[in-house]
Amino acid sequence: MNQNEAMTRDHEILSVREDIVEQTTVQVCIEDTITITLNGIPVTTLKITPVDLESFAVGFLICEGLVSDPGCISAIDVRPTLISVTAEECTLEGSLPSLEIRSAGVGIGRRQELSSPALGDGFTVDKKILFEGTRQVHETATVWRSTGGTHCTILVDNRGHILSAAEDIGRHTSVDKAVGKALLSGIDPGHSFMVCTGRLPGDMVAKAYRAGIPIVVSNNAPFSSGISLAERMNMTLVGFARPPRMSIYTHPERILL
Amino acid sequence: MNQNEAMTRDHEILSVREDIVEQTTVQVCIEDTITITLNGIPVTTLKITPVDLESFAVGFLICEGLVSDPGCISAIDVRPTLISVTAEECTLEGSLPSLEIRSAGVGIGRRQELSSPALGDGFTVDKKILFEGTRQVHETATVWRSTGGTHCTILVDNRGHILSAAEDIGRHTSVDKAVGKALLSGIDPGHSFMVCTGRLPGDMVAKAYRAGIPIVVSNNAPFSSGISLAERMNMTLVGFARPPRMSIYTHPERILL
Repeated sequence: MNQNEAMTRDHEILSVREDIVEQTTVQVCIEDTITITLNGIPVTTLKITPVDLESFAVGFLICEGLVSDPGCISAIDVRPTLISVTAEECTLEGSLPSLEIRSAGVGIGRRQELSSPALGDGFTVDKKILFEGTRQVHETATVWRSTGGTHCTILVDNRGHILSAAEDIGRHTSVDKAVGKALLSGIDPGHSFMVCTGRLPGDMVAKAYRAGIPIVVSNNAPFSSGISLAERMNMTLVGFARPPRMSIYTHPERILL
Repeated sequence: MNQNEAMTRDHEILSVREDIVEQTTVQVCIEDTITITLNGIPVTTLKITPVDLESFAVGFLICEGLVSDPGCISAIDVRPTLISVTAEECTLEGSLPSLEIRSAGVGIGRRQELSSPALGDGFTVDKKILFEGTRQVHETATVWRSTGGTHCTILVDNRGHILSAAEDIGRHTSVDKAVGKALLSGIDPGHSFMVCTGRLPGDMVAKAYRAGIPIVVSNNAPFSSGISLAERMNMTLVGFARPPRMSIYTHPERILL
């Protein structure tokens, strides 16, 4: 594949390795939101890497059982946010609404255009506490250790105390549960940083924003959409937090380096 | 968390390490499909680990901006497949339909109840070729190497030739694209095994089934739903394929050990 340019953009980060802090440029994944229609009927809207969209359309319709034979597809029209497929000779398996069952995120799209104000300054955390949080998330993830299949989210205060923790097959639902547990215990998530496993697209960052959490830390990669949202909402985004390293993508001023 | 029993079930696998093949029992993640309603309006249906559902409901509604203050929630009724929340004093941010944008899988639910016949026998692959495939998927994933953010899927024939390859932010869409590329090139995915990155719930296995692919290999964990579907559809499911080890969850007879 020689399509890296269409799939990524550059972003300036602060790269931290123990006591060495350097500014550097990394590549981050970009996503598009597209809708696919079959014979004029909207089938789904999803986030996708914006390459190979014709192949995606063919594979999606076969793999979801919506078209029984690729030979039935008579036309594929790919536009930036819409793929229209014509396959009038083919039958659909089941009805369309059940397609809407999801395994993961709720998505961002229009809802990412949050009109609410950015989060305030004030909450800061020492680099050592933050690194300790990335160790704590693995200690907490007991089901992950026995299955390798879950994500884990913890909320940690700036003295390093875990306020809330949850494991779930979904990274999004692990965030929901950790935030819900804190709220049901009368704890304000706004006075914590969030450490989660898994990648950080905009919908993950939007969840933290709405819970008022100013710092989001992951052991994994953020996406372009997550970085943009964090920049705009005055949130600190840390990716690839794997002691002794981490990458600070936005608003490093909350981390005492 | 002491809820491991509610979150996992046991499964008998063939554990392969170089030339040692042993039967052993491992734990796999289970999932439920639940719908959440707010004031009687269905908000979303998703796959979730079936614990902490009240916390999930509170966190989800806050994190998705559907309830502005957890104090507004007056009732939460949790049933096996439905969580009904009452929060009549609270306002919704935006309209509900846009919630349906997804970042990942299309889900299984009713559609997992495939009525079509199981896949046929016949296609087999040598263990060495299969291990080589798990190396090839990483070699192919050039965007993953520069970003850490993508999933990759390759289709490989039983002589070890890559027939098709795709990277995408979504593991599901990487499968769609790899299958679509094969079909657009006139290649029958049924004569290949699929190597993908990321976990394997039922919706991932269902995609391979519909494309006729009899062997699905991942470097990561399968879920209970993926294993059940593979068992029933006569598909070979291999998880944690990290040379020199792999775990064969279903129908090992297609792999020449």
